[in-house]
Amino acid sequence: MSNTFAYLGPRGTFAQTAILRLPAADGAELVPAESVPNALSMVRSGEVAGALVPIENSVEGAVPTTLDGLSHGDTLEIVAEIAIPVEFSLLVRPGTTLKDITRIATHPHAHAQCLEWLSVNLPGVHVLPAMSTATAASDLSEGANFDAAICARVAAEYYNLEILADNIGDSDAAWTRFVLVQKPGHALPASGNDKTTVSLFMMENHPGALQEILTEFTVRGIDLTRVESRPTKKQLGAYFFSIDFEGHIDDERVGEALKGLHRICADVKFLGSYPRHDHTPEPVKSAVNNEAFLEADQWLSNLRKRV
Amino acid sequence: MSNTFAYLGPRGTFAQTAILRLPAADGAELVPAESVPNALSMVRSGEVAGALVPIENSVEGAVPTTLDGLSHGDTLEIVAEIAIPVEFSLLVRPGTTLKDITRIATHPHAHAQCLEWLSVNLPGVHVLPAMSTATAASDLSEGANFDAAICARVAAEYYNLEILADNIGDSDAAWTRFVLVQKPGHALPASGNDKTTVSLFMMENHPGALQEILTEFTVRGIDLTRVESRPTKKQLGAYFFSIDFEGHIDDERVGEALKGLHRICADVKFLGSYPRHDHTPEPVKSAVNNEAFLEADQWLSNLRKRV
Amino acid sequence: MSNTFAYLGPRGTFAQTAILRLPAADGAELVPAESVPNALSMVRSGEVAGALVPIENSVEGAVPTTLDGLSHGDTLEIVAEIAIPVEFSLLVRPGTTLKDITRIATHPHAHAQCLEWLSVNLPGVHVLPAMSTATAASDLSEGANFDAAICARVAAEYYNLEILADNIGDSDAAWTRFVLVQKPGHALPASGNDKTTVSLFMMENHPGALQEILTEFTVRGIDLTRVESRPTKKQLGAYFFSIDFEGHIDDERVGEALKGLHRICADVKFLGSYPRHDHTPEPVKSAVNNEAFLEADQWLSNLRKRV
Amino acid sequence: MSNTFAYLGPRGTFAQTAILRLPAADGAELVPAESVPNALSMVRSGEVAGALVPIENSVEGAVPTTLDGLSHGDTLEIVAEIAIPVEFSLLVRPGTTLKDITRIATHPHAHAQCLEWLSVNLPGVHVLPAMSTATAASDLSEGANFDAAICARVAAEYYNLEILADNIGDSDAAWTRFVLVQKPGHALPASGNDKTTVSLFMMENHPGALQEILTEFTVRGIDLTRVESRPTKKQLGAYFFSIDFEGHIDDERVGEALKGLHRICADVKFLGSYPRHDHTPEPVKSAVNNEAFLEADQWLSNLRKRV
Repeated sequence: MSNTFAYLGPRGTFAQTAILRLPAADGAELVPAESVPNALSMVRSGEVAGALVPIENSVEGAVPTTLDGLSHGDTLEIVAEIAIPVEFSLLVRPGTTLKDITRIATHPHAHAQCLEWLSVNLPGVHVLPAMSTATAASDLSEGANFDAAICARVAAEYYNLEILADNIGDSDAAWTRFVLVQKPGHALPASGNDKTTVSLFMMENHPGALQEILTEFTVRGIDLTRVESRPTKKQLGAYFFSIDFEGHIDDERVGEALKGLHRICADVKFLGSYPRHDHTPEPVKSAVNNEAFLEADQWLSNLRKRV
Repeated sequence: MSNTFAYLGPRGTFAQTAILRLPAADGAELVPAESVPNALSMVRSGEVAGALVPIENSVEGAVPTTLDGLSHGDTLEIVAEIAIPVEFSLLVRPGTTLKDITRIATHPHAHAQCLEWLSVNLPGVHVLPAMSTATAASDLSEGANFDAAICARVAAEYYNLEILADNIGDSDAAWTRFVLVQKPGHALPASGNDKTTVSLFMMENHPGALQEILTEFTVRGIDLTRVESRPTKKQLGAYFFSIDFEGHIDDERVGEALKGLHRICADVKFLGSYPRHDHTPEPVKSAVNNEAFLEADQWLSNLRKRV
Repeated sequence: MSNTFAYLGPRGTFAQTAILRLPAADGAELVPAESVPNALSMVRSGEVAGALVPIENSVEGAVPTTLDGLSHGDTLEIVAEIAIPVEFSLLVRPGTTLKDITRIATHPHAHAQCLEWLSVNLPGVHVLPAMSTATAASDLSEGANFDAAICARVAAEYYNLEILADNIGDSDAAWTRFVLVQKPGHALPASGNDKTTVSLFMMENHPGALQEILTEFTVRGIDLTRVESRPTKKQLGAYFFSIDFEGHIDDERVGEALKGLHRICADVKFLGSYPRHDHTPEPVKSAVNNEAFLEADQWLSNLRKRV
Repeated sequence: MSNTFAYLGPRGTFAQTAILRLPAADGAELVPAESVPNALSMVRSGEVAGALVPIENSVEGAVPTTLDGLSHGDTLEIVAEIAIPVEFSLLVRPGTTLKDITRIATHPHAHAQCLEWLSVNLPGVHVLPAMSTATAASDLSEGANFDAAICARVAAEYYNLEILADNIGDSDAAWTRFVLVQKPGHALPASGNDKTTVSLFMMENHPGALQEILTEFTVRGIDLTRVESRPTKKQLGAYFFSIDFEGHIDDERVGEALKGLHRICADVKFLGSYPRHDHTPEPVKSAVNNEAFLEADQWLSNLRKRV
């Protein structure tokens, strides 16, 4: 359905918080997906027009299931991104107080980020693992055998819970970046403030491979914003590079860089060009903006015709 | 205690499988640790002489808690590494058969890696999350309310369980790389086949920063084996680089490269030089081996004395 | 006249030797020019169809008047090159013997290259400067007040002189490289074994400028065969780069590199693409041959249409 | 003799003008040398303490005999440089006027630089070659069969000639750079504003060789001020690189760069570090000044002792 978007569920996760703030999803019907692979499948099958999934967070780094899910199967493209602060709250059934709590549930990652607050405020509390922070909230509201859940604030309203404490995470600056993925055909034109995501597979694992790749970017004045060598899963020590960089596939400098990468890589998997929301980029240098490329095309063309 | 080593527990995890194969831990008393931070604390406090913790796996990539745990607090060093295949088994209480199983427990990551086998062999089974694969086995053996656990084969003998199926992971080539960390003072001398791990923090997030870093390596003929830009957790879009490269801190070329990095980075965190176990490296080029460096030192020294 | 070619005269110079061996000048009428600027003027005015002038020799390096003469004035292009060994002979009027010689004439450069032979065979001989080696031969034949000339062997037949000694140069391997220049419109198509000459003027004299220029070549797999920073004559310390590189302007990799240089330089002066005659080049790497470029164009084009 | 310096003679050349302005030669006895090789021999034999020879001029570029003379034979070092404007004058015997002139003599290079003035003021004049501009003046004063000489103004006083016209060169900005060479042992310590000259011979003529060389400089923040690939004279197409760069051999960054070059080159010929006189350099970046190098040495040293 063209106006339904999925997000990594269940209701009450940070993904829901994120999609509610995403202009691209304004007015859309929103449905939770069980998992990232599930969300991507819903897009591929046409069940939904798009899906919002996490791609990176400040504590764990990149989200492998998303990067891998995009790299395999029918082509999907990132068309938008949004980053939101990850603020954990302690939710309880109405009436529960801090001293009543002996067992809490949450996702292990969330647990890892609230250790300090727990050791001070709930020393000795028993922590149960949950499939997601929202699952913990949901189970809590349905009478599960524990007293509190660590999850996003937004979960309180979905599951009729009370917020006993806010901002209990150890880091003030935790955040998660989500991306909206759709089938090809929905990408926005270049906005002058874009980012592109690619996966680069090497011909072979030769020394200097990363240097060669980076040179394809720097010679065209393109800055990387994220780079990771990731295992290919096929063999110990075989890697591919997952890279985000500034610019849009329709920018001349990006097009030429992608062609250069295509020539030297075994495979270049293009995962989308989309407006960036994290911070204002450096302005594009005059030697590598579209005008400079087009002017150089014209110059060479005249030179080649030099009769 | 100088002959006790910790590993990421509980008993029956892949970390235990790994430490049993690690020559450096031969003859040592082995104790499970509850978590990576716990394992590192045990080393820092002197409770154990070293700890084996996972640092990278072929499905998830780098293990953030390990990289971060090493980067903060009193200095620890990686002194050895080992990589082992991750093979999942389905364990049950004696007597249980496949058709008896309606609920299973495992760690979410393990679940994610066995989806295909489960959809074919146990369609519709209910999966409960556990804090680790070994916890699932342990709980199963103690009569928990589920019928099977997905975990390492080795767990069967610790928890008196039966192996109903082996190799149920979707990927034949999954592996986890573990590192042994100790206090400074236990590193081995250069073996000619070493690897070094560092964390590099930039002066500022300037374009071309990664290119500059890589050049410090390539100009001294050093190959990277892993690179990741990781969030600093302080600010959206601020990154540091976590890097593994070939060579030992006592190799001349590595020393000069580290000094170059120290000059251009805000901070270089050295996490250890240790014999590599993953694959045979390229031989060191003659222009950058120790002899070449020492001969060049002598040459310059004579030239500077040129009276 | 379309079938007349000039060469740096007078008759009997190495330029004449060279043009007689140049396939491109086969069957043409050949006329000597007084100087390099004169030869270039004859081409620009249409008086001759082309001119052969020296561009580099193994003793003096590049020939400034040629590089500068090509860089200024109406556009001319190098369309062919030829390198010939520079072998000096001692020429005399018929009947003169070695012991009769007390004064010889030659061009100062030739003198500089025969010092050893002269010190052994004609110690104490007085050497007079001549405008060219052939002028010395010509003057000698006309009865000038000296006894011998050092010049090319070929001068003997033009000026009715005798060869008293051959190969009297100090270096066995001296050579001069000549280029044939014509008005635009006569360049040959890419042969797969070509060379291109350019002059590159920087935006400003900034550090790293040469590194940037070289990167435009290396990222497209193009090797340089000659590079010089030459004074611009406008200001002490202001330079431009005179560069020869492998490949033809119509090769895809060369076209892209030229465009890149055009974007980052204040001016790129194209001086011609022409078949190389000096040695067999490395074969072009598969990542940067024309097929690779065209295939990448197609790939990007499809990706951009990704609807 | 320790207080006698030679210069490229004869008296009245620009070299004499230059050495009179050179602080290093203040109070020294000055003697003209016949040629550059002769000047260098006088230093090598101990006949003079040093010699001033031209190394580069704005019209011709580098002076091959000087670069080659320094690269072969007993080691000499450049210890100072000076650049002076090249201003040509027309000198005549007393009483001669412009309309009396039908034949003039000068060095061919000087002739080439005065073509415009001659075509306007002495159209059709006959020009005779001389071994140097000062030789022309000297011969003129001794009654040679021509009417004027083009040479340095200073020649008038040595040869009792009159200056008929000044500044007759076509370019206002012509200059020649001279260097003072001595035996090793006279170099000045680093001044913070130095330049170094080297000749770099490659292992083999491999693609990317120049890029590798430049990287040794850029990774240590060193700017080149001149670069030339020059024929080795041994074989057509075999080159070495003649390079000037900012900094002094006793600077840490320069020492490390020289060692790097020594490792990758077949031979590094050091031709001297000396105070620069052409223009103020960029200040050295804080990451590559001596303090940064020494601090990094200390840091690595502590790290290697990490017990």
